[in-house]
Amino acid sequence: MELPAIPTVRFARGRLRLIDQTLLPGRHEVISIGDVDAVCEAIRSLRVRGAPAIGIAGAYGLLVAIEEAWGKGEPVFDSGLNDDGSSRESRTRALAGVTAAALVERLEAAAARVVSTRPTAVNLSWAVARMRGAWRGESDAARMLHRLLAGADAILREDLAMGRAMTAHGAALVEDGAAVLTHCNTGGLATGGIGTALGAVFAAAAAGKRVRVFADETRPLLQGSRLTAWECRERGVPVTVLVEGAAASLLAAGKVSCVMVGADRIARNGDTANKIGTLALAVVARRHGVPFHVVAPTSSIDAAIADGSQVPLEQRGAVEVAAFAGVRVAPDGVEIYNPAFDVTPADLISTIVTERGVHRPPFDLGHGAVR
Amino acid sequence: MELPAIPTVRFARGRLRLIDQTLLPGRHEVISIGDVDAVCEAIRSLRVRGAPAIGIAGAYGLLVAIEEAWGKGEPVFDSGLNDDGSSRESRTRALAGVTAAALVERLEAAAARVVSTRPTAVNLSWAVARMRGAWRGESDAARMLHRLLAGADAILREDLAMGRAMTAHGAALVEDGAAVLTHCNTGGLATGGIGTALGAVFAAAAAGKRVRVFADETRPLLQGSRLTAWECRERGVPVTVLVEGAAASLLAAGKVSCVMVGADRIARNGDTANKIGTLALAVVARRHGVPFHVVAPTSSIDAAIADGSQVPLEQRGAVEVAAFAGVRVAPDGVEIYNPAFDVTPADLISTIVTERGVHRPPFDLGHGAVR
Repeated sequence: MELPAIPTVRFARGRLRLIDQTLLPGRHEVISIGDVDAVCEAIRSLRVRGAPAIGIAGAYGLLVAIEEAWGKGEPVFDSGLNDDGSSRESRTRALAGVTAAALVERLEAAAARVVSTRPTAVNLSWAVARMRGAWRGESDAARMLHRLLAGADAILREDLAMGRAMTAHGAALVEDGAAVLTHCNTGGLATGGIGTALGAVFAAAAAGKRVRVFADETRPLLQGSRLTAWECRERGVPVTVLVEGAAASLLAAGKVSCVMVGADRIARNGDTANKIGTLALAVVARRHGVPFHVVAPTSSIDAAIADGSQVPLEQRGAVEVAAFAGVRVAPDGVEIYNPAFDVTPADLISTIVTERGVHRPPFDLGHGAVR
Repeated sequence: MELPAIPTVRFARGRLRLIDQTLLPGRHEVISIGDVDAVCEAIRSLRVRGAPAIGIAGAYGLLVAIEEAWGKGEPVFDSGLNDDGSSRESRTRALAGVTAAALVERLEAAAARVVSTRPTAVNLSWAVARMRGAWRGESDAARMLHRLLAGADAILREDLAMGRAMTAHGAALVEDGAAVLTHCNTGGLATGGIGTALGAVFAAAAAGKRVRVFADETRPLLQGSRLTAWECRERGVPVTVLVEGAAASLLAAGKVSCVMVGADRIARNGDTANKIGTLALAVVARRHGVPFHVVAPTSSIDAAIADGSQVPLEQRGAVEVAAFAGVRVAPDGVEIYNPAFDVTPADLISTIVTERGVHRPPFDLGHGAVR
C-alpha cells in the first residue's frame, strides 16, 4: 500500500500554499502566500519547517517573487502537482515586456532573502542553488519562466520520490513489533509529504508491520507532541508522547527497539546536525545498546564540509523557552540558551538512510551528496 | 557569609504555611493551610515539592490534623522557628478532655493519607516514621502534644542544619569560575530553606567564588525555569535557562564544569532516583568526562533497598505533558508517558554529598542512612 502524501507545501494558481504548522494540532489550516515577505516570515516562524519542506518552500518562494512583481490578478505559474503529489498540467503565462535580466534581478534578491531565513538546514541553499541553474545562462524570459516552474516542481516531485525510496529503505530497519523512539517531526509535515525518519515508520506500518512510536515532545516548540503525534494519529499508528527527559528511562528499560531521527545537515564523515536534543538521545541509545538511525535525503548531505564542527548552528529567540502560550515561565532578566540544533558525531550513528539506501559506518558521504 | 533560608515550609499559630510554588515566578504567595485535605492537595499538586520539603510539610501536616480536630479558634501549636530559621519560643496548648488514644487515632489516619500522596521520595515516610516515634508509647496527651511539636520542629531545624553542612561540603566541589549544570529545583524551595545541589552552588557563591548556573527548564512542570532561575536571580547568581535537549550540546562544548543534582531516594549502592531527565544528564556527562555530583541529605537514603531497581517510580497524569497553561499541545486520544522520576545507576555518579561529607564510589551508604 502506497503512503498518501500530506500536502505540506504546494503551489497553485500563483500562490504558495502551506499547512500552517504553528496551529497544529488544534487547527488544520492551509495558508496561501503571495509575497516574499510572507514566504520568509513563514519559514522563520516555522509555519513551514523540516529541512526538506523548507527547501521546497524556498524554491516555490522564488516563483512567489515573480508573482508578486508581475502576477497581479492573473497567476504567472500553476504547479504540475496536485495536493496528493499526482501530476496535472502545469501552466506558465508569458510576461509581455519583462526581460530575462529583470527576472534575474528579482530572483537574486528573493534568493538572498530566502536563504538567510534559517542557517542550519542545507536544503534551503541547496534548493536555491538548483533553481539558480534554471535561470543562469537563460536569456529568453518566457523559457526562463518555464524552467523556473519546472525546476520547483521537480524539487517537490523528487522529494516525494526520494521520500518513498528513503522510507522503504528505512522501513527495512524496523522490525515487526518494533517500538521506535523519535524526536521532533520527520513525517510528511517535514517534507513534501512523505517524510524521513517518521515516514520510515509509517512505511513499515503500511507494509503490515505492527509498530509503535515513542515521540519526544521536543522542546521548545513541541514538534513531537504537536506534529508527530498528530501525524501518527492521522495515519493510525499508535503513539506515546513523552518529555525529552523521559526518553532515557525508556531506553534503559529496554522498551525501545531503535531510535530514528532526521537530519538538517550531514557532513561528509556522517556527523549530523539535527534538532536540539538529538545528541543526548544518541549518547543514551549507545549506552543501552539501542541502534540509532538517521534518515534523510541526500539533499541534506553537505559534501562541502568534512565534519560537524563546520555546521552553523542557529540560535533562536529567548521567548521560545521563556514563555509558553503567552504565559511567562522563566523570571524576567534571566539568560536563555536556545540553540535550534546540535551535532551528533558519526561514531554514535548506526546507519544513515538516504533514498540511495542504507549507509553504514565508517561513513564517506561525499559521493552520496547532490552538490 | 551565611546563606539566608527561604521560608519554604513553616508552621505558625496552628497553620501550615507554604510558598505556593505552582505560582512562581509570576507570583510569590504564601498559603496558609488548616486541614489535612489541603495538606495532601498541596503535596500532590506540587504547591510544595522537593523531597526534603515534602518531608517537613508531612511532619507539620500531622500537627494540622490535630488543629483541624481540636484547634477551633485557638491554635494548639506554634512552631519554635521563625521564617528565617532562627529560634523563638514554641507553644503548645493542652486539650482538655482529649485522650492520647484519640490523638493517636487521628494521627495514624492523617499519616496514612500524607504518606500516600507521593510514592517516590522516601522523605515523606521517613518524616512520618520519625513523628510516630513522638507519639508511640506516650500515654499522656499533653506530653504527646509537646513531643509532636518538638518532633516536627526538629525535622525542620535539622533540615536547615543539614542543608548548611551539605552545601558546605558540596561547595568545596565547585571551583572558582565554575559553570554548574543542574536539573529541576534543589534550592531553598526544595527544602526547609537552604537547599541541596543548588544550595551548594549558592554556598560556593557566598564563599566568594564566581559561579554560573545552567538550569534545565525541567519538563513537564518547569521547576528549572520557574523555580531555580527565580532563586538564582533572588540570590544574585547568574543563571542561564535551557531546554533539557540543549544540555548535551553544552556538555559536548566543554562549557560545563560539573553537573549537580538532588535526589528523591538513594539506594545503599548509590543508585539514585531523581527527577525525570537526570539519567540522560548523567550518561551524557560521563561521555564528555564531566563530573556528576548528587547532593542530598541522609534522609534521602533508603537503607532498606539494595539498588535502584527497588525504587517505586511515580507516574503522573497525562495532562502535565498534553497541555500547557490550559492550551492543548498534544492531540486528543494519544497516549502520554509521564514518569516523575528515573534512576541513575551508581556507576555514573562521581560523588554523593550528604551532610556527613563527600561519599565517593564504590558507594556503601547503609551506614549513612538514618533508618
